[in-house]
Amino acid sequence: MIKLVIDTLGGDRGAEVCVKGAVRSLIEHDDLSLVFTGDETEIKNILAAEKYDEKRVETAHAPDVISCNDKPTDAIRQKKESSMYKAIDLLKNDASVNGLVTTGSTGALLAGAVLKVGRIRGVKRPAFCPVMPTMNMGVVAICDSGANVDCDSLQLTQFAVMASLYMQKAYGVENPKVALLNVGTEEEKGDMLRKETFALLKENKNVNFVGNMEARDVLGGKYDVVVADGFAGNVLIKSTEGACLEMLKLLKKTFTSGLKNKLGALLLKKDIYKMKDFMDYNNYGGAVLLGCAKTVVKSHGSSKEKTVYKSVELAYKLEKSGLGKAIAENIAEKTE
Amino acid sequence: MIKLVIDTLGGDRGAEVCVKGAVRSLIEHDDLSLVFTGDETEIKNILAAEKYDEKRVETAHAPDVISCNDKPTDAIRQKKESSMYKAIDLLKNDASVNGLVTTGSTGALLAGAVLKVGRIRGVKRPAFCPVMPTMNMGVVAICDSGANVDCDSLQLTQFAVMASLYMQKAYGVENPKVALLNVGTEEEKGDMLRKETFALLKENKNVNFVGNMEARDVLGGKYDVVVADGFAGNVLIKSTEGACLEMLKLLKKTFTSGLKNKLGALLLKKDIYKMKDFMDYNNYGGAVLLGCAKTVVKSHGSSKEKTVYKSVELAYKLEKSGLGKAIAENIAEKTE
Repeated sequence: MIKLVIDTLGGDRGAEVCVKGAVRSLIEHDDLSLVFTGDETEIKNILAAEKYDEKRVETAHAPDVISCNDKPTDAIRQKKESSMYKAIDLLKNDASVNGLVTTGSTGALLAGAVLKVGRIRGVKRPAFCPVMPTMNMGVVAICDSGANVDCDSLQLTQFAVMASLYMQKAYGVENPKVALLNVGTEEEKGDMLRKETFALLKENKNVNFVGNMEARDVLGGKYDVVVADGFAGNVLIKSTEGACLEMLKLLKKTFTSGLKNKLGALLLKKDIYKMKDFMDYNNYGGAVLLGCAKTVVKSHGSSKEKTVYKSVELAYKLEKSGLGKAIAENIAEKTE
Repeated sequence: MIKLVIDTLGGDRGAEVCVKGAVRSLIEHDDLSLVFTGDETEIKNILAAEKYDEKRVETAHAPDVISCNDKPTDAIRQKKESSMYKAIDLLKNDASVNGLVTTGSTGALLAGAVLKVGRIRGVKRPAFCPVMPTMNMGVVAICDSGANVDCDSLQLTQFAVMASLYMQKAYGVENPKVALLNVGTEEEKGDMLRKETFALLKENKNVNFVGNMEARDVLGGKYDVVVADGFAGNVLIKSTEGACLEMLKLLKKTFTSGLKNKLGALLLKKDIYKMKDFMDYNNYGGAVLLGCAKTVVKSHGSSKEKTVYKSVELAYKLEKSGLGKAIAENIAEKTE
């Protein structure tokens, strides 16, 4: 049995999307059970409208919320009645709980996971690893994307190892192509951190390192894993998402200006929706926190029911695949 | 009289676009004169087809090319017959030469400008400052975008001062809104470099600092200047450009798949071209190297004639506006 704790509070859309999304996953898998943390009455009210196996669902009352205005490290220590605190607490202290899914504060999650749940032995720093869709209908993982704004070259090398295993386990990519985010593709490009990391990755026989890459090529589908420090990875993801969204807005404006355009848009509607759907992060689940002692998936703050469902599916799949064990076995060997 | 040296080699499209683009600018301004460096015969052949004031044009024979495969610092010292070497040499040693425009190697240009032409007194490091179009039909300057992969907080503060003056002089923006690129908008976000820079910018009464910004908001039009270290600035620009290009490709694919889509695309054609045109960097001239002792504009490696024209116009405008003098007057006062 795989047991996941679902933090129902802290996301923009409240408990309903979290409960309903997770129950969808529950129905699909006989060997999945859930613990919801949050406002017990609210959770039970939402559950009342659903049909599911009640024996596989528990609730843990913790109605307080950690918001993005709270200081993460303080909040995860002090807000003991918060749904996130409770979820982290269960993950740490309940041996039967395998993983956690939350739409809440990224900072508090990171602090709780690192300070309380701990790391896989040998892992220097856990790292967030979301994926983005690529133009050839695949995905690319960005590791780290914001957990560690300061990194050294050994950490970056570990990110490469962990994200490679993740792409194998979660997406079935054999021998994932790993690139180092840099200001140019030539070997000598970048700062000391990049030069040192390049040397480590080049020597590492267990990572399929294909060299430096430029930010403009992230969506092209040439790479399966992009290795970055948390600052640059964060900039990469947010600017790519931001630009895609602005382009869609511009397109929408074009489509609605004048009768001729409206008619044209009507003809294209179906395929443009496909294009929009393709760029929609709600289809890709959350960002896994690689290197944490237990499975942790951060679903987007504005997650819909579908997004939470995808995130719970991801956590379930990672547990089934034995990603944590694979990282534990490989991290020392592959990064030293 | 404003005299600009135009490096005709090193770009993807060769000398023709450089010569023709620059001559277009020459015709528009009676007080502009040009020196072309490159293959004299080739330059004269291209000039032969143009109508212009011959008294205001010179050539300096230097037919060798610094390519992107050459090591920048070595090339700018050793390739003495290269068009870039000659251009830097003229800029440094000919007092009548005010500025330089090139489509050639960014690395060699930077090395030549910093090592030979030198900095404005008080400037710690020159920085590349390109602009990107924003959704409200303005532009936003990104400083630095790749000249300095390692930065300290004083350098970043100087980038803010220089880029503010640039936006005033080149684009007539009064009191430009300056934001610091970070992983979140809250004051305490980011690494030590961002925290230190935030404190310096907040105290600096001569910069209109509006706080931290996230990469996803760069195109939204809320900011006039984005301050970044060269690594993050480079990632920001390249991922934004890359995502826009990939979206246009996806759009093109959608427009040509099936008869219904083709018909729809036909109706929308005019406005979609407008959208494409809006995102086209060829309309925005080059990236100025702020803080250099003389005006230096790097035009894109794949510049067309129009791009070079815009870059020459930019160099001319910056000279007329007295940007260098303004930086010299403000840099000490505004950053200490």
